[in-house]
Amino acid sequence: MRTNILDRESAVIGAAAQAADTRRSIRQYESMPIPEADLRELLRLAGRAPSAYNVQPWRFVVVQDDKLKAKLSAVAYGQQQIVRAPATIVMYSDMQSALERMPESMHPDMPQDKRDVGVETFRATFTNQSVEEREGWGVGQSNIALGYLLLLAESKGYATSPMLGFEPEKVKALLGLPAHVRIPALVSIGYPAEEGFRPYRLSIDTLIDFR
Amino acid sequence: MRTNILDRESAVIGAAAQAADTRRSIRQYESMPIPEADLRELLRLAGRAPSAYNVQPWRFVVVQDDKLKAKLSAVAYGQQQIVRAPATIVMYSDMQSALERMPESMHPDMPQDKRDVGVETFRATFTNQSVEEREGWGVGQSNIALGYLLLLAESKGYATSPMLGFEPEKVKALLGLPAHVRIPALVSIGYPAEEGFRPYRLSIDTLIDFR
Repeated sequence: MRTNILDRESAVIGAAAQAADTRRSIRQYESMPIPEADLRELLRLAGRAPSAYNVQPWRFVVVQDDKLKAKLSAVAYGQQQIVRAPATIVMYSDMQSALERMPESMHPDMPQDKRDVGVETFRATFTNQSVEEREGWGVGQSNIALGYLLLLAESKGYATSPMLGFEPEKVKALLGLPAHVRIPALVSIGYPAEEGFRPYRLSIDTLIDFR
Repeated sequence: MRTNILDRESAVIGAAAQAADTRRSIRQYESMPIPEADLRELLRLAGRAPSAYNVQPWRFVVVQDDKLKAKLSAVAYGQQQIVRAPATIVMYSDMQSALERMPESMHPDMPQDKRDVGVETFRATFTNQSVEEREGWGVGQSNIALGYLLLLAESKGYATSPMLGFEPEKVKALLGLPAHVRIPALVSIGYPAEEGFRPYRLSIDTLIDFR
């Protein structure tokens, strides 16, 4: 058996929970940049999120250049956190790339015949869908990794601001992304320089039903 | 300023990262049940996930009853992890409920006029959409909380198996859920009784682009 996580100290077990409870959107950041190696490691961990068929449709452009940040802000209704944050991650779903990479995505511990069936089933499901339908699904799967990304960033001491307010076609043109991709969110990231709103959620009792 | 997370011990900071690296799908579980209070706390934390407009469209049915688990498995192509796990969480998106709850969802620290504008903007965007379009978007937002749920469960020592293979209309009929809702995933949860496949992902260098 793998190491029983229950054996860890309670402080360690509680760290992700604490990050979930603490996280809030931050729009003011310290000017200190995040080292590229740390951003890479954070995105690697976000990419550990599970997805159906292990499809991993998520892709990331990390914008750190000042001039490019200003242009990105301009196609995101002028949102200033993009300019203020040392980096903004443009997350996108690329199901066309994911379809091409399916043989590579299938689990290497699976027997080859099961891998082949997996690739065929996946292709049969998605190849004939419209781009809209396919990338819509890819955005849904990408949001699982977005949840990972936001929680992991908080647990590493970074503040984030996920944004849905942007002009997707203009963002794609600015970054030279293919026409078929879809962008679930932009995420500004850096060290917090404001308190932010305390998180507020509906009572869990209104959202849960035990049977 | 809120407590600087950077001041925590590195072991604590690394806990969520370790959960991301360690998590894999588990389909064999110990028979030991998860206390209802722990499931409630886990779902409360998953519900801390951010969503656009703080809309929180996610809802949860936790199935623990043996007879109901067997019926749920039957409408999920007989997947046995539903029968074996002490609980399976049926996660669904209910944008109709979310629309009704928008005044309650808006942040209490916002001035009332901004809250009113938020509610109106949200309703203007979603009220006239088709159910398909609206709940499709709700599923996307719900998957952010699904990412939280899977990572938090792992960090608390629970194993999970998210499933997309089920007959949604039959699941809805079985649980008496409204026709308009959409189900992003079923998630079996319990204490692991197998090693599972080691996680495998595409190289992050193929997914990331620094600008």
